[in-house]
Amino acid sequence: MFRNTYDSDNTVFSPQGRLHQVEYALEAVKQGSAAVGLRSKTHAILLALKRSTGELASYQQKMYRIDDHIGIAIAGLTSDARVLSNFMRQQAMAERMIYNRPIPANRLVSSIADKAQVNTQEYGRRPYGVGFLVIGFDKTGPHLYEFSPSGNSYEYFAMSIGARSQSAKTYLEKNFESFADCSLEELITHGLHALRETLQQDKELSIKNTSIGILGPGGAHETGITAQGNFRILEDDKIDVYLQSMVPKEVEAPTVTVPPPAAGDDDVQMGDN
Amino acid sequence: MFRNTYDSDNTVFSPQGRLHQVEYALEAVKQGSAAVGLRSKTHAILLALKRSTGELASYQQKMYRIDDHIGIAIAGLTSDARVLSNFMRQQAMAERMIYNRPIPANRLVSSIADKAQVNTQEYGRRPYGVGFLVIGFDKTGPHLYEFSPSGNSYEYFAMSIGARSQSAKTYLEKNFESFADCSLEELITHGLHALRETLQQDKELSIKNTSIGILGPGGAHETGITAQGNFRILEDDKIDVYLQSMVPKEVEAPTVTVPPPAAGDDDVQMGDN
Amino acid sequence: MFRNTYDSDNTVFSPQGRLHQVEYALEAVKQGSAAVGLRSKTHAILLALKRSTGELASYQQKMYRIDDHIGIAIAGLTSDARVLSNFMRQQAMAERMIYNRPIPANRLVSSIADKAQVNTQEYGRRPYGVGFLVIGFDKTGPHLYEFSPSGNSYEYFAMSIGARSQSAKTYLEKNFESFADCSLEELITHGLHALRETLQQDKELSIKNTSIGILGPGGAHETGITAQGNFRILEDDKIDVYLQSMVPKEVEAPTVTVPPPAAGDDDVQMGDN
Amino acid sequence: MFRNTYDSDNTVFSPQGRLHQVEYALEAVKQGSAAVGLRSKTHAILLALKRSTGELASYQQKMYRIDDHIGIAIAGLTSDARVLSNFMRQQAMAERMIYNRPIPANRLVSSIADKAQVNTQEYGRRPYGVGFLVIGFDKTGPHLYEFSPSGNSYEYFAMSIGARSQSAKTYLEKNFESFADCSLEELITHGLHALRETLQQDKELSIKNTSIGILGPGGAHETGITAQGNFRILEDDKIDVYLQSMVPKEVEAPTVTVPPPAAGDDDVQMGDN
Amino acid sequence: MFRNTYDSDNTVFSPQGRLHQVEYALEAVKQGSAAVGLRSKTHAILLALKRSTGELASYQQKMYRIDDHIGIAIAGLTSDARVLSNFMRQQAMAERMIYNRPIPANRLVSSIADKAQVNTQEYGRRPYGVGFLVIGFDKTGPHLYEFSPSGNSYEYFAMSIGARSQSAKTYLEKNFESFADCSLEELITHGLHALRETLQQDKELSIKNTSIGILGPGGAHETGITAQGNFRILEDDKIDVYLQSMVPKEVEAPTVTVPPPAAGDDDVQMGDN
Amino acid sequence: MFRNTYDSDNTVFSPQGRLHQVEYALEAVKQGSAAVGLRSKTHAILLALKRSTGELASYQQKMYRIDDHIGIAIAGLTSDARVLSNFMRQQAMAERMIYNRPIPANRLVSSIADKAQVNTQEYGRRPYGVGFLVIGFDKTGPHLYEFSPSGNSYEYFAMSIGARSQSAKTYLEKNFESFADCSLEELITHGLHALRETLQQDKELSIKNTSIGILGPGGAHETGITAQGNFRILEDDKIDVYLQSMVPKEVEAPTVTVPPPAAGDDDVQMGDN
Amino acid sequence: MFRNTYDSDNTVFSPQGRLHQVEYALEAVKQGSAAVGLRSKTHAILLALKRSTGELASYQQKMYRIDDHIGIAIAGLTSDARVLSNFMRQQAMAERMIYNRPIPANRLVSSIADKAQVNTQEYGRRPYGVGFLVIGFDKTGPHLYEFSPSGNSYEYFAMSIGARSQSAKTYLEKNFESFADCSLEELITHGLHALRETLQQDKELSIKNTSIGILGPGGAHETGITAQGNFRILEDDKIDVYLQSMVPKEVEAPTVTVPPPAAGDDDVQMGDN
Repeated sequence: MFRNTYDSDNTVFSPQGRLHQVEYALEAVKQGSAAVGLRSKTHAILLALKRSTGELASYQQKMYRIDDHIGIAIAGLTSDARVLSNFMRQQAMAERMIYNRPIPANRLVSSIADKAQVNTQEYGRRPYGVGFLVIGFDKTGPHLYEFSPSGNSYEYFAMSIGARSQSAKTYLEKNFESFADCSLEELITHGLHALRETLQQDKELSIKNTSIGILGPGGAHETGITAQGNFRILEDDKIDVYLQSMVPKEVEAPTVTVPPPAAGDDDVQMGDN
Repeated sequence: MFRNTYDSDNTVFSPQGRLHQVEYALEAVKQGSAAVGLRSKTHAILLALKRSTGELASYQQKMYRIDDHIGIAIAGLTSDARVLSNFMRQQAMAERMIYNRPIPANRLVSSIADKAQVNTQEYGRRPYGVGFLVIGFDKTGPHLYEFSPSGNSYEYFAMSIGARSQSAKTYLEKNFESFADCSLEELITHGLHALRETLQQDKELSIKNTSIGILGPGGAHETGITAQGNFRILEDDKIDVYLQSMVPKEVEAPTVTVPPPAAGDDDVQMGDN
Repeated sequence: MFRNTYDSDNTVFSPQGRLHQVEYALEAVKQGSAAVGLRSKTHAILLALKRSTGELASYQQKMYRIDDHIGIAIAGLTSDARVLSNFMRQQAMAERMIYNRPIPANRLVSSIADKAQVNTQEYGRRPYGVGFLVIGFDKTGPHLYEFSPSGNSYEYFAMSIGARSQSAKTYLEKNFESFADCSLEELITHGLHALRETLQQDKELSIKNTSIGILGPGGAHETGITAQGNFRILEDDKIDVYLQSMVPKEVEAPTVTVPPPAAGDDDVQMGDN
Repeated sequence: MFRNTYDSDNTVFSPQGRLHQVEYALEAVKQGSAAVGLRSKTHAILLALKRSTGELASYQQKMYRIDDHIGIAIAGLTSDARVLSNFMRQQAMAERMIYNRPIPANRLVSSIADKAQVNTQEYGRRPYGVGFLVIGFDKTGPHLYEFSPSGNSYEYFAMSIGARSQSAKTYLEKNFESFADCSLEELITHGLHALRETLQQDKELSIKNTSIGILGPGGAHETGITAQGNFRILEDDKIDVYLQSMVPKEVEAPTVTVPPPAAGDDDVQMGDN
Repeated sequence: MFRNTYDSDNTVFSPQGRLHQVEYALEAVKQGSAAVGLRSKTHAILLALKRSTGELASYQQKMYRIDDHIGIAIAGLTSDARVLSNFMRQQAMAERMIYNRPIPANRLVSSIADKAQVNTQEYGRRPYGVGFLVIGFDKTGPHLYEFSPSGNSYEYFAMSIGARSQSAKTYLEKNFESFADCSLEELITHGLHALRETLQQDKELSIKNTSIGILGPGGAHETGITAQGNFRILEDDKIDVYLQSMVPKEVEAPTVTVPPPAAGDDDVQMGDN
Repeated sequence: MFRNTYDSDNTVFSPQGRLHQVEYALEAVKQGSAAVGLRSKTHAILLALKRSTGELASYQQKMYRIDDHIGIAIAGLTSDARVLSNFMRQQAMAERMIYNRPIPANRLVSSIADKAQVNTQEYGRRPYGVGFLVIGFDKTGPHLYEFSPSGNSYEYFAMSIGARSQSAKTYLEKNFESFADCSLEELITHGLHALRETLQQDKELSIKNTSIGILGPGGAHETGITAQGNFRILEDDKIDVYLQSMVPKEVEAPTVTVPPPAAGDDDVQMGDN
Repeated sequence: MFRNTYDSDNTVFSPQGRLHQVEYALEAVKQGSAAVGLRSKTHAILLALKRSTGELASYQQKMYRIDDHIGIAIAGLTSDARVLSNFMRQQAMAERMIYNRPIPANRLVSSIADKAQVNTQEYGRRPYGVGFLVIGFDKTGPHLYEFSPSGNSYEYFAMSIGARSQSAKTYLEKNFESFADCSLEELITHGLHALRETLQQDKELSIKNTSIGILGPGGAHETGITAQGNFRILEDDKIDVYLQSMVPKEVEAPTVTVPPPAAGDDDVQMGDN
């Protein structure tokens, strides 16, 4: 009833030097369904639990394609995510139009972090209520970043955000040292294992509730000069083969053996969505 | 008496990461009389309960025509709806004048969702207190979207908003898989069945309190180049035939058999209203 | 003492999704003396109780002429009414000067409804505290609209606003189906009967406290091209003949028989006031 | 101690639809010493009690000349009155410079009422704390208006504002029907009788505490083309003859017999002050 | 402890129609040391108690020269006084530069009163916390005005502001009728008597704590065309002769007999300070 | 717990006419370590206690050179001091660039006082939390001013600000009459005596904690035309000779005998810092 | 529960003249992991504890390169640090582009201190929640500054900020007099000793949690004209040799003996990061 009085304005520090509104915005991220990101030497991938909104919707976007070489998965307020991802697309498009090149992913992540920081310091706007996992591809290979409403952004080997993401992080911390040399299929299986940790007791990963974003080097089927990556989102039947490859939950996966998918890398490409 | 103190400003997160003002705006939508939307492969339709304001008014608009190929049904604050629908009409008109083409419905829905998101984040304006069901028609056929004051918008196979819309949703979830191949008449009958679920115990659907919005492909009677859809609103006697085709409420409709309307599709067209 | 805390700002929703400040503004309308509007196929009329401010004032305007074809009656804060009616006159005048035509009444009503909606959503201004009954005349004949500070506006066959207007509405609902074919004199008598219902127990309609606004088609005595209507306000002795035609209150009027006024339509014209 | 909480902001309605700040501003008017206005067919006059500020001041302006044909008397905050009266003078001067004509008094009164209305609706300014009685002269003869901080303005046959003005109004209501045909001298005597009613028990009207403003048609001694009125303020010895003509207070004046002033109309003219 | 809640904002009326913030600003004036002003037919003078700030300061300005023909004495917040007096000097300088004439003192006083009024009505600024006595000289002779933070300004025969100024006013009211025909020396002696009344029990007027401002017609020693006045400030030894001429306090001065100063009017001139 | 409610906004007067926020800003000045200023006929000097921030800092600026002829010592918030002193330097530089002359010190002090006054009256900024002693040199010789966050500035013969400055003032008041004819060395010794009074019981003035600012006429070693002063700051070993000349604290200095410094005036010059 | 009420706005002084919001911002700095800075005659170095964010992140930046000759270490809110360091880089870049020279470090530090001061005085923004240690190199050699959110900046011989920095300061105060003549290796060892003092009981410095920033004169391997410094950050294996050279904690280091690093100064250069 008599809570502290420093938490209703993002322009007020608490006596402990904390910004409660920013911390509450981070709670909004934790309310969202989980997302997982990880990367090998050749690929960066995202995995997310689709939000359950009944049978009537075609699907609820949890992943967005920003550009050929950048994709994101979100956790938190969807409308905030749309606004920020539109901003990212505009930045990426401007870079291509003005400089004829893909925008560096770390710069793009910094630009939304700067937008978010303003909302933690100035009066009249609340912090954003959404977090991102961002995967990007440049000359040095694949990258994974986390963007947070606090205005921070960091690069990670593997990361998870959203509801019960701590469980996924525990899995990732145990296994991330082997990710660098994983094949794409192994990487996906690791990601699914991590994502499964975020499920409630009686839930299972299925082709209905799981989506996978994949970013690898631009292949031969892409003839554009600027092609550095090839972001694709897998859903529905396309992910069944990966779900089948998972080790049952009681047995922690010591060595992951992933069967190659029925079709090659190309046939899971979904293009712009 | 001592409620939480995070709910009187849309720029303040609660400690749980919630935006109470946005949730209260969603309550305003739930106060409005219900609307139902559904679509088949060829048509998208809207059904709404007219708001009862006594006998003296000619009628209270619950549906608005935005363009030939886009129509909406509303639930919530009517004046907010008018402002947003005028904005939609201007966007549609500008698209036709500048690019000589119909505006894509999903883009139009995103543009009002962006407007709504700003009002959930910035100081000085309350969130909108109205929700929309939007039906649109483009090259890929009919679409149905929900717009919410939270700034979210999703595509649905079928959806309901407003007072007691949960009951309509339950009906829709049971039956939506059969909608794709329904004829227009069957689709309307399904919609009426769903709408009936939102009625209070002692109320009945009638030609007085029901209106139906229909959007199908532009037919031969439309010679304009840009005709992609043909949004019409049916009211009064025009809907009697559909009301007659309804299965009495005690018996859940296993197979819907709808008699063809007395006149064809054209004669229920009401033009611009 | 401990009222809810959501009612002192028009930019705040209550947990029930209500805008209390807008509701309080509607209370201001209910504080005003009543006005009644009704229409036949050929005429639309307004009737209002003049506000009693003692003997010293010449009269308190309750009706305003906006243009030849548009008139209004108000209930609520007079100063708000003056500001909004001046805005209406400017809009009407601009339409004539720019397009050389009378402004459509429904568009004019929408424009003030839009103004009012802004004051229900944005910070820094209270909602307007006045409601209007608006009568207008166009090619399709006479119309009657209600404007409310909530930003809503609807067309009606007959309507009443202000103090005890519910009693007038009850009368109108009982009789409105016969209004369409009424003569002007019958319409006025119906209006007076409805207005009488809003009086306190011991009050009577009199030539002192009643005024009548009449809008019919532009007659032969008007030679201008744009004449579509002919809004006039009757007061004082001019209304005595109508008061005499009223059925005493104990007997509900089954069939209204109105004697023709001593002089024709023209002699009650008051021109611009 | 626990007063209502709707009265500290002029942009907030109370649950009863009242604007308390506006009502409090009207209290400021009631704190001011009284002023009385009345008119005959040929003249409009103002009478006011000078505010007692000890012997040291030359005099405290309670009446202001706006133009030849417009004068005002104030009650309430003097500094607000100065600001508004300066605005009125500028409007009058602009009318003469741009259109070479006297500004219509009713339009001038409306313009300050519009200014006042804004302060009852928008955030950041309090309502004005002053009321005016305005007398003006045009082709149709003399007029009397009341301006109030609520943004209202009405025309009156006779009116009083300020402290204990209700007593003056009671006198005026009893006698106003005879004012139309009064001579200027009779009108002044009526005004003094009304003003006397606002005095506290032990006070008397005297040449020290009373001032009279007179507005009649422009006479022969005024040769300018635009002369429509001739506003003059009488004070000190000039009003003694009128004070002498008053009926002692115990006897209510059934028929007023006023001796002609020692000198004619001209000699009480004070010119611009 | 539970004071009224209408006194912390100058844009809020109390239920009694009072502006408490303005009243509190007047308290700030009463905190300042007293100043006295009076005038004869030929001169206007100011007398003030210097503020005691220990021995270390050269002097604390209580009087300011605005122009040759205008001087002021202040009571209240010194920094507010500096800002307002700078504004007055700029106005006076602009009048000389643009129109080559001295600014009328009453117009200058009105201009600062207008500035002060704004701060009593608009949000975001407090009222000024200083009062002025202003003496000016024009064709009609010397004048004395009081400016108050309420935005009021009045002309006086004699006046006092600041701490215990009521005692000075009592003296002035007893004697002001004789001031008109006083010589400058007599006027100064009256002023010193009045100023003495504002002293605390055990204080005395002395050459250290008293300053005198004198404004008479421009003399032969001023050859400029625009010279209408000649404002000078006397301090220290220059005022000793006047202090010597005072009647001891126990005996109220029935007839003032002032010895001529050792040197004439000119030798007390201090020029611009 | 129930403190007065008028002290959290610098735009609100208390019922006693006080501006509490301004008074609290003066407290910030009193929190700063003390500074002392005094002047003779030929020199003005500043003495200050360096703020103890441990051994690690090179030094904490307590004195700033504004121009050749103006120097300041501060007490209070250092960051506010930097902002205001930068403003002073810009003003001084602009005067030299535009008019090729040194800025008058009293005008420069007035300009920061005006800046400070705004922050005591307008909403949105707090008052400055720093006070200055300013010494300046012009044709009339050396001057000493105090600037206060209240927006006041006064000229003094000698002054002290900051923690326990009252003790220094007591010393200065006892001795200031002899300062005018002091040599620079005597003046410094007086200043050190005054500054010593502000020390806590167990502290001593030392070459580590004391700094001295000196301003005298521009000497022969300065050949520029505009050289009017020569502000220098003495620290460390340079002040040892002056510390040695001090009379032990138990004996109050009746006659100060100061040995000439080892080197002349020039060798203590530190140039721009 | 009833804390003081002066601490939620950075534009409000407490009665003691304190700005609580600024003090709370300083708390945010104290929440950050510690950083240490020190300098010799030839070098300035920074040492920082990397923030522990689990195994998944590549690293969390605690040091930033601003330009060749300027580097910073931060403690507090990382997003605020990014914004301010970007501002510093832009200032440095502009100086090079416009004037073709390195920006003076003290000027750059002042410019962010000015930015920070504004946020302690003006409404609508909170103070920054981050502190910096800044090392810079110019003609006079290496420098070390502390920037604080209070808007202060000072030069130091050695300094520490962040959690438990007081312990580091104690070490630095004991030893700083010997730093001037230290070799780079000795300086680093001193810095590590100081940084170790900030560790919690059971923590140790390691190549994982420690980073070292080094700034010395531009060497032969830099051929640019403007090279004045050569800021490098050492991490991971590169710092192992320094960690090995540390004296075990129980024994306070009387004389530090540092083995030369395996490779010279150049091979620890990391270039731009």
